[in-house]
Amino acid sequence: MNQFLAGGILRNLLAGMVAVVMAVVMVPVTAQDQKAEALKMDRSKILSQPGVFGVFTTYKWLPEWYELPLSERMDYVSRVMELIKKHEDSVLVDVYLTAGLGGRSDFFFRIHSLELAKVQTFLREFRQTAIGKHVEVLDTLIGVTKPLNYITKERLPELYAGLASATYTGDVPRYAIVIPVKKSAEWWNLSFDQRLVEMKAHTLSTLGYMGSIKRKLYHSTGLDDADFITYFETSDLIAFNNLLTSLASIPENRYHVRWGDPITLGTILGPEKVVRVLAE
Amino acid sequence: MNQFLAGGILRNLLAGMVAVVMAVVMVPVTAQDQKAEALKMDRSKILSQPGVFGVFTTYKWLPEWYELPLSERMDYVSRVMELIKKHEDSVLVDVYLTAGLGGRSDFFFRIHSLELAKVQTFLREFRQTAIGKHVEVLDTLIGVTKPLNYITKERLPELYAGLASATYTGDVPRYAIVIPVKKSAEWWNLSFDQRLVEMKAHTLSTLGYMGSIKRKLYHSTGLDDADFITYFETSDLIAFNNLLTSLASIPENRYHVRWGDPITLGTILGPEKVVRVLAE
Amino acid sequence: MNQFLAGGILRNLLAGMVAVVMAVVMVPVTAQDQKAEALKMDRSKILSQPGVFGVFTTYKWLPEWYELPLSERMDYVSRVMELIKKHEDSVLVDVYLTAGLGGRSDFFFRIHSLELAKVQTFLREFRQTAIGKHVEVLDTLIGVTKPLNYITKERLPELYAGLASATYTGDVPRYAIVIPVKKSAEWWNLSFDQRLVEMKAHTLSTLGYMGSIKRKLYHSTGLDDADFITYFETSDLIAFNNLLTSLASIPENRYHVRWGDPITLGTILGPEKVVRVLAE
Amino acid sequence: MNQFLAGGILRNLLAGMVAVVMAVVMVPVTAQDQKAEALKMDRSKILSQPGVFGVFTTYKWLPEWYELPLSERMDYVSRVMELIKKHEDSVLVDVYLTAGLGGRSDFFFRIHSLELAKVQTFLREFRQTAIGKHVEVLDTLIGVTKPLNYITKERLPELYAGLASATYTGDVPRYAIVIPVKKSAEWWNLSFDQRLVEMKAHTLSTLGYMGSIKRKLYHSTGLDDADFITYFETSDLIAFNNLLTSLASIPENRYHVRWGDPITLGTILGPEKVVRVLAE
Amino acid sequence: MNQFLAGGILRNLLAGMVAVVMAVVMVPVTAQDQKAEALKMDRSKILSQPGVFGVFTTYKWLPEWYELPLSERMDYVSRVMELIKKHEDSVLVDVYLTAGLGGRSDFFFRIHSLELAKVQTFLREFRQTAIGKHVEVLDTLIGVTKPLNYITKERLPELYAGLASATYTGDVPRYAIVIPVKKSAEWWNLSFDQRLVEMKAHTLSTLGYMGSIKRKLYHSTGLDDADFITYFETSDLIAFNNLLTSLASIPENRYHVRWGDPITLGTILGPEKVVRVLAE
Repeated sequence: MNQFLAGGILRNLLAGMVAVVMAVVMVPVTAQDQKAEALKMDRSKILSQPGVFGVFTTYKWLPEWYELPLSERMDYVSRVMELIKKHEDSVLVDVYLTAGLGGRSDFFFRIHSLELAKVQTFLREFRQTAIGKHVEVLDTLIGVTKPLNYITKERLPELYAGLASATYTGDVPRYAIVIPVKKSAEWWNLSFDQRLVEMKAHTLSTLGYMGSIKRKLYHSTGLDDADFITYFETSDLIAFNNLLTSLASIPENRYHVRWGDPITLGTILGPEKVVRVLAE
Repeated sequence: MNQFLAGGILRNLLAGMVAVVMAVVMVPVTAQDQKAEALKMDRSKILSQPGVFGVFTTYKWLPEWYELPLSERMDYVSRVMELIKKHEDSVLVDVYLTAGLGGRSDFFFRIHSLELAKVQTFLREFRQTAIGKHVEVLDTLIGVTKPLNYITKERLPELYAGLASATYTGDVPRYAIVIPVKKSAEWWNLSFDQRLVEMKAHTLSTLGYMGSIKRKLYHSTGLDDADFITYFETSDLIAFNNLLTSLASIPENRYHVRWGDPITLGTILGPEKVVRVLAE
Repeated sequence: MNQFLAGGILRNLLAGMVAVVMAVVMVPVTAQDQKAEALKMDRSKILSQPGVFGVFTTYKWLPEWYELPLSERMDYVSRVMELIKKHEDSVLVDVYLTAGLGGRSDFFFRIHSLELAKVQTFLREFRQTAIGKHVEVLDTLIGVTKPLNYITKERLPELYAGLASATYTGDVPRYAIVIPVKKSAEWWNLSFDQRLVEMKAHTLSTLGYMGSIKRKLYHSTGLDDADFITYFETSDLIAFNNLLTSLASIPENRYHVRWGDPITLGTILGPEKVVRVLAE
Repeated sequence: MNQFLAGGILRNLLAGMVAVVMAVVMVPVTAQDQKAEALKMDRSKILSQPGVFGVFTTYKWLPEWYELPLSERMDYVSRVMELIKKHEDSVLVDVYLTAGLGGRSDFFFRIHSLELAKVQTFLREFRQTAIGKHVEVLDTLIGVTKPLNYITKERLPELYAGLASATYTGDVPRYAIVIPVKKSAEWWNLSFDQRLVEMKAHTLSTLGYMGSIKRKLYHSTGLDDADFITYFETSDLIAFNNLLTSLASIPENRYHVRWGDPITLGTILGPEKVVRVLAE
Repeated sequence: MNQFLAGGILRNLLAGMVAVVMAVVMVPVTAQDQKAEALKMDRSKILSQPGVFGVFTTYKWLPEWYELPLSERMDYVSRVMELIKKHEDSVLVDVYLTAGLGGRSDFFFRIHSLELAKVQTFLREFRQTAIGKHVEVLDTLIGVTKPLNYITKERLPELYAGLASATYTGDVPRYAIVIPVKKSAEWWNLSFDQRLVEMKAHTLSTLGYMGSIKRKLYHSTGLDDADFITYFETSDLIAFNNLLTSLASIPENRYHVRWGDPITLGTILGPEKVVRVLAE
């Protein structure tokens, strides 16, 4: 049989199948969801454990997006929310709005998972949605969480205690900032003790800001073109500017070959806001 | 009900709704405006206070823009002016024309607000306008104003007095120039007193130009990929070239890792000119 | 109904269908295939010999791709699989999925051949396929395999033995990482013995990871803008992050002028998975 | 039949035609022209005075341009010539063809004016023409002419005399080259006398080439991302290559942080050639 | 007369004229060709003389190209071959296929001429062809050949003799590699004798490869953003990788500020192959 003919038949067959299967599959969705509910990851655990992968992926709307009527866009965002729900047993997805603030980007996802391949599965399905077809990927950062390696209880009990007791006391944070970091060969060739001295100074610089700024660290060496992804949440951007100026003023800064480039600043979209705000 | 069908119905319903609501909303605009008028920010205050966010966002027309008839373009610009008016209680928007002068860009906004999220709200609504759909975002810079931190009355009374008495005596400025600045780790690791010495030299270099050049400083560290946004207004570009050459010739310049890149030069569009000039 | 909710069941059904239909379509190809079968390269040989060219070429789907129905896309991927089969006597093609993980890219090929021109012939025919018409080339890296030049049996018998006995004991690797490397003029101007000292330290840093990470080296100087292409396979990305951090911490890192930029991380698609996964 | 083989004859015929038709079209313009004629700037003055702004703006045809019939393109170029004429009392426009030579660009304008805003006005009207709608802006450089600041009559009478007596003796120049220059903080922090030493060496390197190469300098610090725009005209590109190699070989070159990037080389289009050559 | 009306009439007149003239011109093509034949440049002379300009211009197919039927594409390539023939008295054009190997590019031209303006004329006519309308220009390099300036018979008779006697003995080369080179201010500020020492080492490193690798040098300083274009032909890419590694290992490499970036590798298309291979 001619391959092109075969292709045609294959196409028709598959097209028909898809229609049938989709009709059938509609029913058990809730059942499947219930199971997902049972399995879904505990947010507070996933955000505090080591060994969790974090993927930051930044998008820009294609110009066509703005041509769609608002109702259609809201509908499309709703589908993405369903997709997020569908995958909630394997990936935890947060959405941030960068439009107007984050350079050329419009929004980004922060996705946590114990398995990087699950993040890929989610993102591939996302690209198949109407929204996924209306965006351009600008950037992707990949990191993994690890236990604290410098400021430990044994090594620096006082500083560790300071860190442990310094808790966030601000409002629910409205802004998130993502800053990739790459350090020079000189940094990595320092002895552990030399790096410990610098990280002590680093930690001291941050202590005073921990009441108003949350932070989280991902290790990236070899997974993307950074060594770390530093993630911050705050409602007080002036305090944040002071913190970063303070971090610029310690010797550790001499070892940065990348610090930002880009810095991505966005507003945090709670699940209840995503559909309305992202679609607008 | 099938979601695709639901999408269709939802779309129609919402589309109808939007039409109705917009018709209704148009009427009370003046009422709403009056309230806004009462609340709207005092321009001279917002431009002189610390703690004010400044966002610079640069645009390029998509090729389709030039295909629209002039009347339609003027109409579209008018809508943006209405949007600016609508938001005037929370954001102060200035418009600058860079077409032909500012690299690939065509115009930029400088937006001031006490709250960065309000700037995002305005810019998202802007993207929904006919103009917002005909532009590409080239760049965004974010900074915040702070009190003078080097040349204070207590520390350097004479220089401070010199600054205070040096007032702009030129014509209404026609040109604005935006220059992002990033300083090296070496700079930030200097002691405050060492940096003070350099900033004294910096200030002395500028004193002679303050009659013909206005300037304003925004702090950016951690908010975007610069440390400062320096903003200038002048009608005397030769004096400006002399000032910048003078600033290049002092030791502070050794600590610049970014100075411009890009420098953006535009003409200042007073509100009365925006519609005609931007649309043309 | 949402087709993504139905993903699991749909996938299984389609996978079965494709197997059947492909079996049908394959019929007229057999004669030609048998000849190819006889000539085709021995995979394990080609992957272990010196003098073999390796080309890494990274693609991004054009937006139109996502508009095609799934059945059509699966059909198109099948054609590429046939093309790979057609050329199997001269090129060995591996496919990797980077969508969601590898920056802006969606997938990449790693192609081995004894003759670089054969790779070009294959890639030109690939560009003529429906898929080739729906992708943009993002990057190409070209290298060639060579015998070990530092750690040889004669020179460093113990280390050589360590390398020889350290075999991969992990699961079938799920991830591949490609990292281009360029070394400074200072490196290349070191004496051979000085470089040998550094490469000994390099090798010692890697020994402990060889049970969980596979690696392969291609020489690129003059063939593209890197000196080496380093290729890794693993299922343990945390071990991989540790290995690369370890390699950052030895003096050799001081001689890197390029290390990544970009790092490309993808999942390995075995032949049985390519059609289904790539098309989705 | 291949239209390019016919190029020579076709060109001659068309050139004649255009002359005739343009003569016809020009009639109703004369009154307006006469006024312009009276006001228009003196070319030799504007090219020799200090305090004159020079804007270099580089364009690339959009792919659609090549789809237009030649006659239409010639018509469109004629309109631009009329626009240039219309503005001749405020801006002096030169046109250069870079197609095939200047990287990705196709042509550039060099525009002189006593007022930068007038250049913007002209360029905005240009963007409204049919040609302006068929181009993409690649780059813009802005500078201003100033009196000689190093080699003056008082300071270095002999060298000054050498410069004054070295006049261009070559053919009408066919090529123009534009090279932006940025100098390091180290340069600008040298004392004036140290810089004078270097500029003396610079000038001595150029003296021997002034018979075959014309040059002109624009100061850019603060107006764009360069410190200078150096502009050259010549018919002897080998001499030009020798001159630039000679300038690379003096200490001043150690202070270049940008020298070119891009260098733009084009052929000079006299007014009589613009319509025919640019449109082709 | 209204200019727009005049435009319309002009358009119609010219459109008619072109049709007529093109029909007429068809006939004398062969006559014109015969004259060209007589004048055409001697390939071996043009490739060995100093004072010859070399332009390297790299292209990428626009996506539309792949949509055209093969017969149409072959026809279009044939037209380009005719154009090359038409200009053979002034420019010598070689074609190279980089698709799949040369980063994002698909093919490049190397064009020699005694006059740079002739190259521009050819390339402008090329852009008017159907192929020229289906490509994007990625890069252009411009250089000129000069007599050997370091290794001369008088200065280094032995090395010169070595160079003279080392002739290419390999197969007809299948691959070409283009590597732009830029050297630092430190290099250019070395004395001639110091540079001679380095170039002696350079030449000694290459001698052993001259049997398998051909090379040619173009000087670019001031003509584009490189100092040299180095061009190589070979059938032995492993030897080429060894040669370039060898050149990386001598002190001269310390003076490279650009070496490649990009390196462009392509297969050499003899005239008999261009139409078939380029069109495919």
